[in-house]
Amino acid sequence: MMGTLFLFPTTLGDSLISDVLPDRNTKLLATIQHFIVEDIRTARRFIRKCLPLAAIDEMTFFVLNQRTRAEEISSFLQPLIEGHSVGLLSEAGCPAIADPGADVVALAQEKGIQVVPLVGPSSLLLALMASGFNGQSFAFNGYLPVQLPEKVKVLKRLEIKILNEHQSQLFIETPYRNTKTLTDILTHCSPGLKLCIAADITLEGEFIHTYTLKDWKSRMPYLNKRPAIFILYK
Amino acid sequence: MMGTLFLFPTTLGDSLISDVLPDRNTKLLATIQHFIVEDIRTARRFIRKCLPLAAIDEMTFFVLNQRTRAEEISSFLQPLIEGHSVGLLSEAGCPAIADPGADVVALAQEKGIQVVPLVGPSSLLLALMASGFNGQSFAFNGYLPVQLPEKVKVLKRLEIKILNEHQSQLFIETPYRNTKTLTDILTHCSPGLKLCIAADITLEGEFIHTYTLKDWKSRMPYLNKRPAIFILYK
Repeated sequence: MMGTLFLFPTTLGDSLISDVLPDRNTKLLATIQHFIVEDIRTARRFIRKCLPLAAIDEMTFFVLNQRTRAEEISSFLQPLIEGHSVGLLSEAGCPAIADPGADVVALAQEKGIQVVPLVGPSSLLLALMASGFNGQSFAFNGYLPVQLPEKVKVLKRLEIKILNEHQSQLFIETPYRNTKTLTDILTHCSPGLKLCIAADITLEGEFIHTYTLKDWKSRMPYLNKRPAIFILYK
Repeated sequence: MMGTLFLFPTTLGDSLISDVLPDRNTKLLATIQHFIVEDIRTARRFIRKCLPLAAIDEMTFFVLNQRTRAEEISSFLQPLIEGHSVGLLSEAGCPAIADPGADVVALAQEKGIQVVPLVGPSSLLLALMASGFNGQSFAFNGYLPVQLPEKVKVLKRLEIKILNEHQSQLFIETPYRNTKTLTDILTHCSPGLKLCIAADITLEGEFIHTYTLKDWKSRMPYLNKRPAIFILYK
């Protein structure tokens, strides 16, 4: 009998566990000894917060990040094949959504291992809920290109999808580039488009507001180093 | 001082509250007297499950569904303007994602009312997490058209987006049409594409599997009347 791969969301920052995670997650976490994580220190801190008395030193951690080789990922599933359940943890939010976790989930699906996703905070979904934008049709586009000509090209393409397909367009940015990207959006997209900016979601100072690009120009928010989601729509 | 519009996710079926919702949600729910809901009976049942001792008869419910007129929606925000917080509830899962709730959120944003989204189960997101597909780029397309020629046209368009944009494509179907739609996908899409079928998420009998279309043909699942998410990718 093979183990189960449980997908454990984590907090989006320094919020209370009981504010953003169901009890079930903590209870399941207490039964697991093997974890696949992006960074061991963050993972240990999260587990300690959920289970102050856990024997973390006896747990096994496999590191899955951009540098992990494909051959290695396969070995992370060994405990599952031996009958032990494994927990996949994200650095923040839901694993396998905007992080490298999807590779190990894909492999587990291929090998017929049961995959069970648990409920937790997704900054993308929470932002979309609170934006007031179309939730019947939306797309997440990851990061915009860094260089301006390519960034503008992508923004124009998203604008066409908003107008022709009525599809809300979500993207993220490295926190220290938020202000630059916001300025680029305000400069290069149609002023009648609407933009939702959602920063510090589920944290103190949560900021989620929707205005037209024209209106954002006169109320530039302070976004430096704040994790933020941007959503464009009409 | 205006009230806050809280967005309360609900369970995806008959699961335990503590399995899928954080404690914070129940605590906040207990402080609220005004609700915007899709169906009063389901909403009362959900509140009763979270708060067995609540005085539900003293609560005010506004009904927001496909038939609600735009003028009416504006009046639902009156308690907020008078300083009372209001809860927006979905029939199942996260409000304003694949339901009419987005209209009232849009209006709240326009009027400068604070909107606070709470964490809860989203069948779309949970399915995507467990699919093993690209979580860095994905799109939700709502329902496919019912008529075959239009349905095939949309499926072909999704296939092009998968191949050219490496974008995972999510859609849903009315439960009694699941089997028909699955057959249509298997007949009309390239057999090398992969499909994740996620049914009864967070419920007993949860089923989340990813195979190529070719492989699904020899293992047709029983999907009749089961709420399901379909995700296509390569």
